[in-house]
Amino acid sequence: MTSPEITAYAIIRTVDAPFDETVERVREKLAEEGFGVLSEIDVQAALKEKIGKEMEPYLILGACNPNLASQGLECEPDLGVLLPCNVVVRVQEGQVHLAAMEPLTAMRLADNPELESLAQEARERIERAITNV
Amino acid sequence: MTSPEITAYAIIRTVDAPFDETVERVREKLAEEGFGVLSEIDVQAALKEKIGKEMEPYLILGACNPNLASQGLECEPDLGVLLPCNVVVRVQEGQVHLAAMEPLTAMRLADNPELESLAQEARERIERAITNV
Repeated sequence: MTSPEITAYAIIRTVDAPFDETVERVREKLAEEGFGVLSEIDVQAALKEKIGKEMEPYLILGACNPNLASQGLECEPDLGVLLPCNVVVRVQEGQVHLAAMEPLTAMRLADNPELESLAQEARERIERAITNV
Repeated sequence: MTSPEITAYAIIRTVDAPFDETVERVREKLAEEGFGVLSEIDVQAALKEKIGKEMEPYLILGACNPNLASQGLECEPDLGVLLPCNVVVRVQEGQVHLAAMEPLTAMRLADNPELESLAQEARERIERAITNV
């Protein structure tokens, strides 16, 4: 296990495993924390198709814990703008990188004190998932 | 046309049209500004399936302008955590509401001055799309 680093908006780490295997591990570890993957964007394929850009593998998984999301939407109806919690799996010069949205930072944009404990729980769960990949 | 309101993290307005028609109009107006929809999350259906929750229609469309996204990712590799630009279409007590992520606010989380002009352009385009729905 590798402790992730916290940046201005993300929980990041590198992984010493191939890209596809890492994506599967990310899904498993998110599931263990109660997060399903509700969206999946293959950025590499999308940018190749739309503008002919060549880039390394880059996937955005949209992770959602239904209980936390449900409670969040009840106290902040527009919160969907900041959901789901994106987890990026990408390759840069052969190295696999993970980056997850830092939920406390994102939720604090809404400036709604009722979200604080939900965001704190999401932060702990996402950080644990990233650590355990 | 109705000018939208800018909140702490979103560009919001109400629409006097049915939900399904509004979703189609949102797609059209996003396309006119160069944004494709790369993800679509039916939150109402997902929360019903996962936890049996009953709620009004709630859709999150993930909008992406490939040129802006491509430039953004080049200067900030983890930027995918904050992409795509979510546009929520939801119903509350019969009224259709729109809410789009405010790109300047979101991009400023990254604290990267190179993103400023891209975020400004995204903000103008998204605000115009929401206004024109």
